[in-house]
Amino acid sequence: MARDLSALFAPESVAVVGASDDPVKWGNWLARGALRGEARRRVYLVNRRGGEVLGRSAYASLGELPERPALAVLAVPPAALEGTVDEAIAAGTRALVVITAGEADGDAGGARDRALAERARDAGVVLLGPNCLGVFDAGAELDLVSNDLPRGSIGLISQSGNLALELGMLAADVGLGFSRFVSVGNQADVHVAELLHEMAAHDETQLIAVYVEDFRDGRAFASAAEAATRAGKPVLLMAIEHTEATARAVASHTGALASDSAAIDAACRAAGIVRVHAPQELVDIADGLLRARVMRGRRVGVLADGGGHAGIAAALLQRAGLELPGLSEGLRSELRDGLPATAAVANPIDLAGGGEQDIHSFDRTTGALLRSGEVDAVLLTGYFGGYAEYSDAMGRSEASVVEALADAAQAAGRPVVVQTMHPDTAASALLRRRGVPVFRSIERAVDVCARLAERGELAPAGVPALRPAAAPVADASTGDTDSSYTTARALLSAAGVPFVEARTVADADEAVDAAAELGYPVVLKALGTLHKSDAGGVALGLRDDSALAAALSDMRARLDPPAFTIERMAALSDGVELLIGARWDARFGPIALVGLGGVFTEILRDVAVALAPVDELHARSMLLSLRAAPLLQGARGRPVLDVDAAAAALAALSRVAASHPEIAAIEVNPLLALPGGALGLDARLELAAPNEAGR
Amino acid sequence: MARDLSALFAPESVAVVGASDDPVKWGNWLARGALRGEARRRVYLVNRRGGEVLGRSAYASLGELPERPALAVLAVPPAALEGTVDEAIAAGTRALVVITAGEADGDAGGARDRALAERARDAGVVLLGPNCLGVFDAGAELDLVSNDLPRGSIGLISQSGNLALELGMLAADVGLGFSRFVSVGNQADVHVAELLHEMAAHDETQLIAVYVEDFRDGRAFASAAEAATRAGKPVLLMAIEHTEATARAVASHTGALASDSAAIDAACRAAGIVRVHAPQELVDIADGLLRARVMRGRRVGVLADGGGHAGIAAALLQRAGLELPGLSEGLRSELRDGLPATAAVANPIDLAGGGEQDIHSFDRTTGALLRSGEVDAVLLTGYFGGYAEYSDAMGRSEASVVEALADAAQAAGRPVVVQTMHPDTAASALLRRRGVPVFRSIERAVDVCARLAERGELAPAGVPALRPAAAPVADASTGDTDSSYTTARALLSAAGVPFVEARTVADADEAVDAAAELGYPVVLKALGTLHKSDAGGVALGLRDDSALAAALSDMRARLDPPAFTIERMAALSDGVELLIGARWDARFGPIALVGLGGVFTEILRDVAVALAPVDELHARSMLLSLRAAPLLQGARGRPVLDVDAAAAALAALSRVAASHPEIAAIEVNPLLALPGGALGLDARLELAAPNEAGR
Repeated sequence: MARDLSALFAPESVAVVGASDDPVKWGNWLARGALRGEARRRVYLVNRRGGEVLGRSAYASLGELPERPALAVLAVPPAALEGTVDEAIAAGTRALVVITAGEADGDAGGARDRALAERARDAGVVLLGPNCLGVFDAGAELDLVSNDLPRGSIGLISQSGNLALELGMLAADVGLGFSRFVSVGNQADVHVAELLHEMAAHDETQLIAVYVEDFRDGRAFASAAEAATRAGKPVLLMAIEHTEATARAVASHTGALASDSAAIDAACRAAGIVRVHAPQELVDIADGLLRARVMRGRRVGVLADGGGHAGIAAALLQRAGLELPGLSEGLRSELRDGLPATAAVANPIDLAGGGEQDIHSFDRTTGALLRSGEVDAVLLTGYFGGYAEYSDAMGRSEASVVEALADAAQAAGRPVVVQTMHPDTAASALLRRRGVPVFRSIERAVDVCARLAERGELAPAGVPALRPAAAPVADASTGDTDSSYTTARALLSAAGVPFVEARTVADADEAVDAAAELGYPVVLKALGTLHKSDAGGVALGLRDDSALAAALSDMRARLDPPAFTIERMAALSDGVELLIGARWDARFGPIALVGLGGVFTEILRDVAVALAPVDELHARSMLLSLRAAPLLQGARGRPVLDVDAAAAALAALSRVAASHPEIAAIEVNPLLALPGGALGLDARLELAAPNEAGR
Repeated sequence: MARDLSALFAPESVAVVGASDDPVKWGNWLARGALRGEARRRVYLVNRRGGEVLGRSAYASLGELPERPALAVLAVPPAALEGTVDEAIAAGTRALVVITAGEADGDAGGARDRALAERARDAGVVLLGPNCLGVFDAGAELDLVSNDLPRGSIGLISQSGNLALELGMLAADVGLGFSRFVSVGNQADVHVAELLHEMAAHDETQLIAVYVEDFRDGRAFASAAEAATRAGKPVLLMAIEHTEATARAVASHTGALASDSAAIDAACRAAGIVRVHAPQELVDIADGLLRARVMRGRRVGVLADGGGHAGIAAALLQRAGLELPGLSEGLRSELRDGLPATAAVANPIDLAGGGEQDIHSFDRTTGALLRSGEVDAVLLTGYFGGYAEYSDAMGRSEASVVEALADAAQAAGRPVVVQTMHPDTAASALLRRRGVPVFRSIERAVDVCARLAERGELAPAGVPALRPAAAPVADASTGDTDSSYTTARALLSAAGVPFVEARTVADADEAVDAAAELGYPVVLKALGTLHKSDAGGVALGLRDDSALAAALSDMRARLDPPAFTIERMAALSDGVELLIGARWDARFGPIALVGLGGVFTEILRDVAVALAPVDELHARSMLLSLRAAPLLQGARGRPVLDVDAAAAALAALSRVAASHPEIAAIEVNPLLALPGGALGLDARLELAAPNEAGR
C-alpha cells in the first residue's frame, strides 16, 4: 500500500532547520524559498543560536515551535544530523527533507543512512535524502531548493542538482517547466519508485522526467514507470550506465551481451519508458511529447520554402527510419492549385519562394497534407517563424498562419512539428503555445518525429512478476572442473528446452556403443572441464569408431576428464545457430537474451533483451526483432525455420532463470533453429558466488 | 590550369544591373550591399529606366558606364537575361553574377544555361549562376547578397540561400563567420570544384563549408577538396543524397549496397572531407576544428563538478567510440592533492563541489591531465562558465581560470572542449576567443571530440585518377538470357581475379567427364540464364555421376540453357564468403565495394566503399574495416585467412571497373577467402543501357 507523501509536497507548515542569514549557505536559500510560500503555510526558521534570521526571530530547536511542523528541512552540520532527526521525530514532524550530507554519504548503502531511515520509518515519518537538494511543488508553492525553477507540467525526479538546474534552464527556454522537482539524494527511505507512483497520481504533472544513478529496486522502479505510462504520463529516463562488465557473469556470452545498459533498455521496453542520454535530448523530447499528438504511423510530409531545407530534412527523416510517402495524384493536384508554378509538390514539398509570395502557402499546404490522411505528421522546416522581419504586416499574416497550422493539426489529430532558424520570435512562441513544438535544429525536430512515431507504435511490453524461488541448483564445481554443462542441460531439459540426444560414457568401448545407437557422425565432449571448448574438450564430426576412439584417447591424455558425452552431430547447415540466455542483474533481476549464435554472436552483437520471465509470444517478438530475423523466415531461398520452437525454448529458459536467483548466468549456445523444432547443442551455467546467492 | 576568379571576389569596380529603390527587390538589396564597399571600389547602378536609384543617378545600360566594370551582378527579368549578358560581355565585364532565374531553371542542365555559359566562356568571362544568390567577400568588402552575414574565417559555398542564412545565424551565435560566401546557383559555368580550389588559395579562409545538391564532376570536386584538406583547410560537406536506387544497377548486391550516400562517403574518405548532415552539426564541428587542436588519440579525460554531468559525458563518449582511460596512480595522487576529499579522481573526475569551494580546481586538474600525456583531450562539462552569477569576484576568478585552461591546452598541444549550461556568458565568450570551443549540449561537445580524434587519425585516402578506357565489353545478352556470368568471369580472370576451376559442357556425358577431371563434389550451373540462382539454374554439392546427370537433365527440361558449367564444389566452411564489386556512379565514377558475402550480405550491410581503382594496400584496409574483419583474422579459434589474396582480387576488380565506363556494375559473389588464397565462385555483370555507355 502506498504511503501518504502529502506532507512532502503540500505540508500545512514548514520548519527550516539551519536557517541562516549567510547568502552562500543552503540554510539561507531554503529559508528564503520557504518564506515565498508563506501565503500558503506557516513557516518556522530554526537556528540553534536562536536570535534573528532574515529579519524574524528564529527558534533554537524544533521542540520550541508552537505546533508540530508537517515538514522539516534539515541543513545542519553532519555531526548534528542524528540528533536533529530525533528532535524532529519527537516534535511530531511528518516529513523530513535531509539536505545534510555526511562524509561517508558517497556510500549510498552506508550504515548511518540505514539507521536514520529505520528511525524515521519506525516513527511513521517520511524521509527524503540524506544528501538531497530539496523539493519543489509549483502548485503548492513549496520552494525548498537552491535555485529558481520554471513552472510547468514536468515532474522531475533527479539524483543530481546541477543536472536539474540545467534541465530547468533548457526547459524555460522553450516555455516548459516543472510541476514538481524532487532531489532523491541517497534514497535512504523515500526512493525513486515511490516518487514515480506519487507523480503519476499528481494532476498537474503530465510527464515525468527521471535522472537516476542508483535504481535501488529496479523492478519496482519499472513497475511504477509502467503504471505512470499506462496512466498517460510518459516517463523519460536518463540513467548512468556502468560500463564495466558484471563481475559475476564474464565467462558467458550472455554476460558480455546483456550489458548493464541493455538491462536498462529491457526495463524501458517493459515499462514503456522513453530512454534519453543527455539533458537537451530530454527537454526536446519532453517538448514533443507534451505538445504534439503521437503519430499513428511513420509517414511524414515535409514542407520547406527552399530545396536545401527540404532535402536535408528528407534525408535525416529517412536515416531515422521514418517514411516520406509519395503523394497521390489527387493530393498533388490540390497542392499544385494553391502554389506557385515553381513549387515542387512531391514529398518533400519545396515552395521554392512560394512562402514569401503568399505566406498562406504554408497553412494551405499543411492543411491539405494533414486532411489527406496520406501522412501521419507534417514537418515544416526552414525560415518560417521569421517573417515579422520583413514587415509588421507580414508578421501579422504569419501569426494567422500559425493559428491555422495549429487548428489543422488539432482537427486532423496529427502533429505538426516545426524546425526554424528563428526559434526565439513571437511566431515561434505562439506556435508553442498552440501546441506545435518548435526546434532550432533539424536533427532534433526529426528525432522528435521519430519518438512520436515510436510512441504511437509501442505499448509497454509489461513488467513481469518474479517467480517463486525454486530449490537452489546444487553446485558440484570443484577446483578446475565444473558441472556447468550437465547441470544446465538437466535443469533446462526438465523445463522443456530440447537438447540433442546424448549419452554419458566412461571409456572408448562405451563410446563406440553409444555412437552406434545414435548414428555417426557424432560429437565427443569431455565433461567436467572448465571452458571445455577452449581447452580442446570438444571434437566435432567424428565419422567412425576409430576417429571416435582416437579423439577420446587424445582428450583423456590431455584432460583426464571424469566422463564424456557422445552426441549426434547436428546438421548445422539446415538451420540457424541462436544463442538464448539469461543473467541476474543486481538492479533489475533476471534478464533474458536471444541473439544470433555461432561465430557472429559477439561480432554482430545482434541481440534482444527483456526482463525475465518472458512468455512464448514475447519470446517470439524478441526473435523477430533481430536484424538476422529474415534468416529465420526464409530469406534468400532459405528454409522457413520453426520460430515458435525457438521462442518456446527461450521462454522456458527465462522461467528457469526467474526461479533461480542463485544463477548468475545460464545459456544455451548454440540453440539450433531448424525447419521443424529447435535443438540445444551446448549449455553453460554460472552460479553466483556464495555471498551473492539468494538475493 | 586554374582560371583567374579575382574579378568575382575582389573586383576594382562593380555594376548592379536591375538596381532598384523597391526595398523588397533583389536589385535594392544588391545595390545597397554594393555601395557598402564603395570605399574599396567604384560602384555603378544600372536600371533600364535610368533616373535615380538610392539617391544617385542610374545608368540606363552597361554600355553607358565610364569604364569597363570588372564585375556585373544581374538582377533583371528572365526575358531580359540573354540581352543583358551580351551587353555585359560587350561592355568588357570580366565576371558576371547572375541572380536572375528563368522559368526552367529547375532543370540545371537546361539549354539556356549552357548557351549562356558558352557565350561567357568564349569571351573569357567568368559567370556565376544563373539562379544564384550572390557573392560575399569579407576581406574585400564585397557584399552582393540579400542579408547581412557575419565575418569570420569560414569559406562557404552553398546551393541554397536559406541554408546559408541559417548557417550565418548559427555561426554568429558562437562568434564565427564567413571569409567568403558564394552561392553557386545552376553552376552553368563556375562550379563547386573550381570554387573549392579558389577558397583553398584564399588566405583569410581557414575552413571550407559546402552545401551542394549537384556535384557536377564529383571526382573533380573530390580532388579539389583533397587539395584543400592537404593545404590544412578542413572541408565540411553537407550534401543531399538521392535515396532512390540507381536505376541501372538494381539487379546486383553492389547496386543495392553501394548507395548514392555510400558513394558520397567514399569521396569524403578519399578527399579527407568531413561529412555532416545538418546546419547545426556543420557549425558545431567547424567551431571545434577552427578553435581546437586535433586529438592525437582517442583518450579523453572528463572533468565535472557533479556526478550527473560526469557520468553522462562518460557514457556518451564511450558510445561515440572514445576512450576514458584509467589514470595512473601518480597522476591520481597529484590530482588528489589539489582537490577536496570528496572529489572522485578516477576518470571521469567529479570535483563534487570542489569547483565551488576553489574554482582553480578546474585549471589545476585540467593542467595536470593535459601535462600527464595520459589523455589526448579534456572535456569539461556542467556548470563552469556561470560562476559570475555567484559574485563579481567569482566571475573574475573564473576569467583567470579560463586563461589558465587555454594556456594549458596550448602548452600541451591538446584540446580542451567545454560543455556548459551557461554558453552565453562572458566566461564562455572568453573561452571561445582563447581557442576553447564551448557547446551548450553535451551531445555536441562529445561529437566534436569524436571528430577531432577522427581527424587526428585519418589522412585523406587520396582521390585516384581514372584509368584509360579499355576496349568496351561486348554485350552478348539477348532476350531472356544473358552472358553476365561467363563475360564477367573471363574479364576478371584476365585481370587476375582467381576463380574456381570450371568446364563448359553441352550434355551429361561431357559433364560426367568434366566432373571426373575436377573431382566430386561438383556444382552444375545453367549458362545464359538470367538470375540463374533464383531460376533453379544452380545445383550445389553433386556427389556422383548419377546426381550430376539427374540435375543436368532436370535443368535442361526446365530452362533449356545453351550450355552448362561444371565446377569443383568449394569447401565453404574452410573460409569466409565475401562480396567484391564495383558500380559506375553518375557523379563520382567507379566505386569499389567489399562486404561480407553469403546470406548475411544484405541483412548486415557490412560493407566498405571507395573510389575505384583501389590499390592492394587500400583494398586490404577496406577489408579490415569491416565489422566482420575478426572472422578473417582468426577470431574465436577460426583459421587466419589470406586477406592479401582477397585484397588483390578487390584491387584487380576495381581496375577493371575503372577502365570500363560501360559497365554499370560488376561483382564477384561469393569470393571465398581461404587460409591460402581467395576463390571467386560466381560473378555478375551489368552493362549500362546503350545511351548511357561511354560516360
